[in-house]
Amino acid sequence: MASPPTPLRAPEHQVAGHQAAEGRLGPLVDGAGLFFKPLQGDGRGDDEVSFYTLLSSLPSSSLPSSSFFPSFHGTRLLPASDGSGPHPHLALEDLVAEFSNPAIVDIKIGSRTWYPQASEDYIRKCFEKDQRTTSASLGFRISGIQIRDGSGAWKPDRGEIRRFSPRDVRIALRRFVSSDPRSDPDRALAAAVYGGADGVLAKLGELKRWFEEQTLFHFNSVSVLVVYERDAGATLGKGKVKVKLVDFAHVVEGKGVIDHNFLGGLCSLIRFISDVLTGLDENCI
Amino acid sequence: MASPPTPLRAPEHQVAGHQAAEGRLGPLVDGAGLFFKPLQGDGRGDDEVSFYTLLSSLPSSSLPSSSFFPSFHGTRLLPASDGSGPHPHLALEDLVAEFSNPAIVDIKIGSRTWYPQASEDYIRKCFEKDQRTTSASLGFRISGIQIRDGSGAWKPDRGEIRRFSPRDVRIALRRFVSSDPRSDPDRALAAAVYGGADGVLAKLGELKRWFEEQTLFHFNSVSVLVVYERDAGATLGKGKVKVKLVDFAHVVEGKGVIDHNFLGGLCSLIRFISDVLTGLDENCI
Repeated sequence: MASPPTPLRAPEHQVAGHQAAEGRLGPLVDGAGLFFKPLQGDGRGDDEVSFYTLLSSLPSSSLPSSSFFPSFHGTRLLPASDGSGPHPHLALEDLVAEFSNPAIVDIKIGSRTWYPQASEDYIRKCFEKDQRTTSASLGFRISGIQIRDGSGAWKPDRGEIRRFSPRDVRIALRRFVSSDPRSDPDRALAAAVYGGADGVLAKLGELKRWFEEQTLFHFNSVSVLVVYERDAGATLGKGKVKVKLVDFAHVVEGKGVIDHNFLGGLCSLIRFISDVLTGLDENCI
Repeated sequence: MASPPTPLRAPEHQVAGHQAAEGRLGPLVDGAGLFFKPLQGDGRGDDEVSFYTLLSSLPSSSLPSSSFFPSFHGTRLLPASDGSGPHPHLALEDLVAEFSNPAIVDIKIGSRTWYPQASEDYIRKCFEKDQRTTSASLGFRISGIQIRDGSGAWKPDRGEIRRFSPRDVRIALRRFVSSDPRSDPDRALAAAVYGGADGVLAKLGELKRWFEEQTLFHFNSVSVLVVYERDAGATLGKGKVKVKLVDFAHVVEGKGVIDHNFLGGLCSLIRFISDVLTGLDENCI
């Protein structure tokens, strides 16, 4: 557990989850490609370490050919961001390290985020939140979104995002690929980001095919993170659109059954994104 | 609303739902191809009539090319099976009329059978039943099953079926295509019933592709009914394996969103049946 060589700081581009601000415990980055996520104290941190450890041990034939998982670099004891002293952290790939101006959306998949093995209290809280947000109705909800350009940014706060209606979700997925997300969404980047052989839809399709087969894991409360480069000087191209899964604290064994909850929600998301690409979403807004 | 020409009787091969026995209100058949389902009194009957009426008005391009819906022949005022006098009935295709010895399984699809528009009481009841049965864990549950041959029958009662574990479901889907369902399941009929171009898996695959596209309806608490001929003299062949959807009292508008709950459960069922066909289920039993 060696200390990283570069100073640690709160990530600049975090859109969802616990944040290292105002003396709270949150993730850190080293600016050199690593993202340190503090282990949560109620067993969830250990569960996430177990998941990454098990994942690392699987043969590549058990996994999709594209890498949908952040690379895992063990755990590190690091000074906590809240000043409370040394705290164990997961050392993960910093998914936005290579981007100068990443557009990011975090989409939590599944019409239910709870699972039968969880505590009654956890189930009740998740159940209520799934009904209040679009999880129950759409099979997914947006947990965070950020788009910046020269003249400003669109990064709605957590409260605003929680109140997103199905219509708001359609508009957000459209703004996410528009030239100026603050004015009328023009979908100017939809073909480059959502379409094409390396675009979001192709990657989500590969993920879907894996979920139709895999019965190892049930991915409860896991997000799909989509990132692309909005730097004015960059040309959108291969390697610059990322689709990753994040947050594995509630993954449980699949026991020979496919993850029908994740798969259903993923299919719904694919349809929503496909509607933006084809312009069909205009009929629904 | 003319009376049917032949005497009405309780169906011989009903495996799930309300049954016309012991003075209760239940469905009737005329023995000439029609199945009469009494309209339920709390609005559900009217909702099912509305669904069939709307379905009949859709262009064929909106529907899967195979017919997954029983044909609809309007409503009829008929003497109720419970002796309570004239009662309105849906007139539907009798799905087993052409079979001399039908093997039947009724599989209710979806990890949840409730939906946000329903009453609080209905939601609570469904939620609890979904947890007690395999709906929540597998994304579907068996609601009824019947297999008969010369020497006997396997038709577990409702209470036994409700207690089916995931393992029991695997075994039931195997017994369903075995030469003698009462002894060790041999899967002798799996290739003929589940496999092939007109088999159950091919039909469920077509249904899946439709559910990946259609956003007209959400099929809450709807069953897939699978029927095939077990008459000793019959050769299993084209037209003798049926896959139909039944029970549309809780269908609601899709409003541009795919039915991710049905789709996820359907994918799980496809995987279970595929496991029986390939013998992979043996690893899980």
